[in-house]
Parts: sequence; structure tokens; C-alpha cells
Amino acid sequence: MNMIVLLPHDEFMRRVEKVRAQMAKTEVKALLITDNANTYYMAGRVFAGYIYVPAEGEVIFFVRRPVELKGDGVVYIRKPEEIPATIGLNVPESIGLELDILPYSQAVRLKGLFPESELKNASTVMRQARACKTDFELDMIRRSGVKHVHVYSRIPHLFAGGMTDMELQVEIERVSRLEGCLGQFRISGDSMELYMGNVLVGENADSPSPYDFAMGGAGLDPSLPVGANDTEIKPGNTVMVDMNGNYDGYMTDMTRVFALGNLEELAIKAHQCSIDIHHELCDMMKPGVEAKALYQRAEEMVKERDLHPYYMGHRQHAGFIGHGVGIEINELPVIAPRSRDILAEGNVIALEPKFVIPHVGAVGIENTYALHDGKVECLTPAPEEISYFDI
Amino acid sequence: MNMIVLLPHDEFMRRVEKVRAQMAKTEVKALLITDNANTYYMAGRVFAGYIYVPAEGEVIFFVRRPVELKGDGVVYIRKPEEIPATIGLNVPESIGLELDILPYSQAVRLKGLFPESELKNASTVMRQARACKTDFELDMIRRSGVKHVHVYSRIPHLFAGGMTDMELQVEIERVSRLEGCLGQFRISGDSMELYMGNVLVGENADSPSPYDFAMGGAGLDPSLPVGANDTEIKPGNTVMVDMNGNYDGYMTDMTRVFALGNLEELAIKAHQCSIDIHHELCDMMKPGVEAKALYQRAEEMVKERDLHPYYMGHRQHAGFIGHGVGIEINELPVIAPRSRDILAEGNVIALEPKFVIPHVGAVGIENTYALHDGKVECLTPAPEEISYFDI
Repeated sequence: MNMIVLLPHDEFMRRVEKVRAQMAKTEVKALLITDNANTYYMAGRVFAGYIYVPAEGEVIFFVRRPVELKGDGVVYIRKPEEIPATIGLNVPESIGLELDILPYSQAVRLKGLFPESELKNASTVMRQARACKTDFELDMIRRSGVKHVHVYSRIPHLFAGGMTDMELQVEIERVSRLEGCLGQFRISGDSMELYMGNVLVGENADSPSPYDFAMGGAGLDPSLPVGANDTEIKPGNTVMVDMNGNYDGYMTDMTRVFALGNLEELAIKAHQCSIDIHHELCDMMKPGVEAKALYQRAEEMVKERDLHPYYMGHRQHAGFIGHGVGIEINELPVIAPRSRDILAEGNVIALEPKFVIPHVGAVGIENTYALHDGKVECLTPAPEEISYFDI
Repeated sequence: MNMIVLLPHDEFMRRVEKVRAQMAKTEVKALLITDNANTYYMAGRVFAGYIYVPAEGEVIFFVRRPVELKGDGVVYIRKPEEIPATIGLNVPESIGLELDILPYSQAVRLKGLFPESELKNASTVMRQARACKTDFELDMIRRSGVKHVHVYSRIPHLFAGGMTDMELQVEIERVSRLEGCLGQFRISGDSMELYMGNVLVGENADSPSPYDFAMGGAGLDPSLPVGANDTEIKPGNTVMVDMNGNYDGYMTDMTRVFALGNLEELAIKAHQCSIDIHHELCDMMKPGVEAKALYQRAEEMVKERDLHPYYMGHRQHAGFIGHGVGIEINELPVIAPRSRDILAEGNVIALEPKFVIPHVGAVGIENTYALHDGKVECLTPAPEEISYFDI
């Protein structure tokens, strides 16, 4: 028997309660969820259909595909218009739909099932609920981190003289996949696209990209203008590796820098600044702290060291230095200058203060941290200094 | 100077005219496009921002990122609220937005820029315009096909005894990437997820998936329940390979079957039926033919041979046997029983009549065909019979 909810019962109930607590804050009386990431959060599996979460009463799983799922609250439907027949007379005062994700046509169609309910934004509800991870989720992120770190430890052995950025990236992709990386790189909203991550070498790190990632790269093709662009790895250049850490549905985010031969002093200084920012911000990260305070402190440190022209890009600058991570790569909180987010118990945050040094490449590290039980736990522990390839 | 439109001028104008022809049919007076696939279609590159296409007059490119783009009609903005200042008094009677793709919140925000214009669906306009490829686009799809076919020719050399589906897939991914595969697998709408394609072995081909793909597979993890699931490749089983053919922003779609040792007669018979359907439908495919007529003819052939229980799946059945392909994998026309699409000059269609044989695996082939100049051109030419791995 293939049960629809793959989570332990107490974990499922914990998540339902977290979602309901957010619903209560925003006066959402029922949610109808369909996004894959939110479905996975609620059920521990992705299926095609809808999850109906009323403020009180049983959660209902309306399933279109796959066939043969069982469990409490499972109702098979061919189309969403069959939903009201099950909900019957319990029409909610307000219905929350994933308005930041759901295509307009689909949202209008689903709203039509609840003509008398007020429309509310379920995207916010789910993003807030998911921002604070349960212990169960922390364990899954931790497990991804262990594999992610292991793959990175093999990178120096994958390098061979004369390689391009893409040739090295392909070997890292292969090792990642053999280690169990699922490949799928989930980003909320579909305007950002990235394939398995970024390997940026030398000048290419300074190529502006259309996407809201911390670092760019020209990419191989104007249809996907980000990342590696067939630059040969040469002495004096850095190799910044920021590859997919999704090994079990939950991701870690991790960046390390490699180099061939000696680097300019400026690059080494900027890399050390990134490491120092990590340590400083780790001391600051506590429930109740404003996300923007982290951003400001990092910026101060950068300015004190005169590294501002290179910080978070050179020709083009990114507007954030960190972000929540979990099922998706861009969760709450956002560590940005005008962020209104407040750090909270259970947050998992990737910090990525980085620099682009002209003619050298990108430097700086990224780690994923969990805030829990009064601690800041690094989920991507690995040497932080620049690692030099053997020539 | 980095020009915003990377297409030759006459090609750009041809696409604008194709889009305007569709706008005229549906009384859309102006489009505001932002989806990556549509942006790439119009400009030959992906950028973050909006393309404004009025029924008459100059196309305007509102760019947020990357920095440093130039060209006719380029206007840099920080947010969409700056758009009306440029359009000025030329407020269109109706504004087309990508309502089948654009998140509800974003659509409402963009509609707010045109308070006096009627809201129309630009998704349909763009899908119809993109369904008939230009010669320039056909050349790009042809080039992807050449590389796709080359990668498939190497598959028998990648197999080693004792391999699992995933181990073989990883080696195919590596060869694909080294051949220039961009990886990104563009699907219109974001509910279907797939990483680089599918390698289905034996019984796993019969695992139902939540996605609307022709074949399923259990996948490695409930967060991405599709495709390979660590099944060992054993004698008597088939290996169906349906891997990403995106080498230049345009895709081909191609499936071939491999096997280890002898197969049941039923599997061989079903595979031959798939090949015969391809040849029959190639004879039928002409501008003016109804897409559903192709579906019906294929179904007749399957029934004549008593293969219906296995056709397009066994435990779960897919509802289509072919689809348009180009920038995205699910373009028009759709070859399905209730499709209203009519084949037209310039269509590029992937046909995939497939079968799942219990305990054996999936059989059948997929090719991508272009309809142009009175011909049906196969863009994925390669041996069609089952290829046997050396034991």
C-alpha cells in the first residue's frame, strides 16, 4: 500500500499546526495547495493534485496522479471542479491560494471553486511556515550537507591541467550524481534558471547575468546566460564552485574556491574578509535579530577593508548576501538591506559574502547554517581557505 | 557592445510579424512578455525584464538585468511601475499578459500598469506563434538533433555489466554535457519536473509518476518521483533512454531502447508496433491534418495487434502520444484524442508511441520531426530497432 503521507504522523501534524498558526495570523480559513514544493512539505512526497487544509478539521488530499495512493483524506479527482462536491457545505470564509507561484489562469480557475470565499495569499503562509524547520527537516538538510561536503572534498582530485570550467563542472556533476544528488534545483518562482550550479573561472565571474543569483557568469548559450562559459582554468585565476546540494529533497548551499598557482594579494585579502564575515555573523545570528542587521554588519566590514568595489560583484552587484534554504534555494529569511525578516528558531540560512576581483575571478565562501537550541550549527563544514590545485 | 537582440534583423522582424498575426486574430493590441522562453524567442537571449510588443510601432525592451545591454528600444528599469512613463499616451485598448505562466500576483501587478486596457491571454498568442518554426529555428533544432543522435550512438559503449539505471544515466549525462548539452529542460508551466531525462529499466517503467510525461518511473526520492530508481540492468529487461536534447536553446526529443540478453516476444512485437506507427504517421503528417487523427490512427494499429493493455503505460496511461517541441518540451501541437490542433507548415513534432511490458520494461521509440516544404524531416535519425548491449 502506497500511503499518500510519507511523513511520520507526529511530523505531519507538527507541519499542519505550523501552517495553521500562519493561517490564523493572516485570517486564512482554508488553503488549497498545489505547488510541488509545498506539496512535498505537507505530504513528504510530490503528487499531482491539491491539498486542502482547513483551519479546523481533516486535511484532504485531492489526487490526479499517480494512481494507487491510499490514506486518510485521499480523494481521486480528474479536474479541480470536482473539489467542491467533497468540501460540501463547509465553504470557508476565505481561501488561500499560492498567488506568488500559481499561474494567473489557474488561480482564477481555482478561485472559481470558492465563489463566496475571500481570496488570500497562501504563498506567504507557506513561506513563513517553512522558514522555521522542524528537527525532522534539520536532519534531512544535515544529511544533504554531509554528501555535499564529501563531493567538495573530491574536487581537487577531479582537476586536470588544461581543463575548462565546464569540463571540471561536468566531473563535479558526475560525482554529485553518483553520490545521490537529485539534480533538481528548486527555485521559488520560475524566472531564475540554473543547471546544477555554477563553476566560475577568472574573468567570467565578472560577466553580468540576468538572474538574481549572487554571482553571474556568461554561460554557454544566450538561452541560459549564467555560469561556466568554456574558460580554461589558468594560473592566477580562481575557480569558484557553487554546486547543487539537493540529496534528499532538502538542500544545502555551499561555495568553495580553488586556484591554480599564486593569486593576487587583493584576492587573498577579499577571501579572508568573506571568512571573517562568516565568523562575525555566526556570532550575531540569534532568534530575534533583524536580518538586515547582518547585512549591515557585513557591509561595514567590507568598507573598513576598502573592498567595496568588488563586494557581491563588480560590473553588476547582487542585492543580498544570504537567504533561507530548505526545499527551495530561495526561502526566508532574506539577508538584504531592506529585509523585514527577523531571525527565528529553526531558520536555515546560507550566507554568501563574495567578491569578484577583476582578471582574477570570484572569491569568498558560502555555508549553510541552522539556528536551533541556542546554537548556530554549520551544515557544510569544510576547510574555508582557498584550495590550490596541484600544477 | 552587447546588443539586446541576438537574432539577425530579418529573423527578428519575421518573429514579430508571426506574433502580431496571432495578436490580430485574438484582438490583442499589445503584449507585455516576461517569461524566459518567450523572451528568448523574441530576443534570441534571456534577460530579466519585459518585452512590450504593440500591434504597430516599435518593440520596447524593458531591462532589469543584466547591465550593459544596448540596442533599439532598450529601456533600463528597476521595477515594472516605470513602464507606463515610456509608453506614455499610447495606452493599448487591450494588454496581453502570459496568463498561463505568470504568477497571479505578478499578473495583477502588471495589469495594474494598464488600468484602462482589457486583459487578454498572451500565453495563447505566443504558443500559437511559436508552434510554426522559422527556417532559422529549424536549423537550431537540427543542430541539437545532430548532437543528440551522436550522444545516443555512444550509449552502448557506456554500458558496463552490473550497472544500475542511474549509473548508466550519469554516464549519459556526462557525455551529453561534454557534447554541449545545456542541461536546462524547459517545460511550460512549472508543475512538471525532470532532471536531464529518463532512463527506465525493467519493472520501474511501470511505476506511475505524478507528472504528465509519457513514461513514469519511481525516481530516487519522493521529492522527485520520476525516472531511474537504482534498478540493476539485468538480462531480459529493457533500458529505455529518453534524455535531454537541449544543445542550443532549442530541443529535440528522442527515445531509444537498449537491452541485455533476449527479450520476451511481446516486447519485440510492441517495439515493432511503435516503429510501424512512426512510419504510418509520417505518411499522414501534412499541414491541414487534425492532430487527433494521428492519435486515432495509432490507436487503431495498437488495437489491431492486441497491444492496448500496454500502450502508453500499463498501471497508469498517458493521454497523448506526441507534442510540439522547440524552446520548450511541451509546445503545440498536442497529439491527443481531444486535441483541436491542426498540423501546420513549420511544426516540429515529437512522436512517442510507447509500451510498458510487465516484468520486461518499456519499449518503443521517439523521434522529432519537422514539417516543412511538403516534407516530413526526421531530426533524430538513428537506428530504430532495439540495441543489445554486449554481455
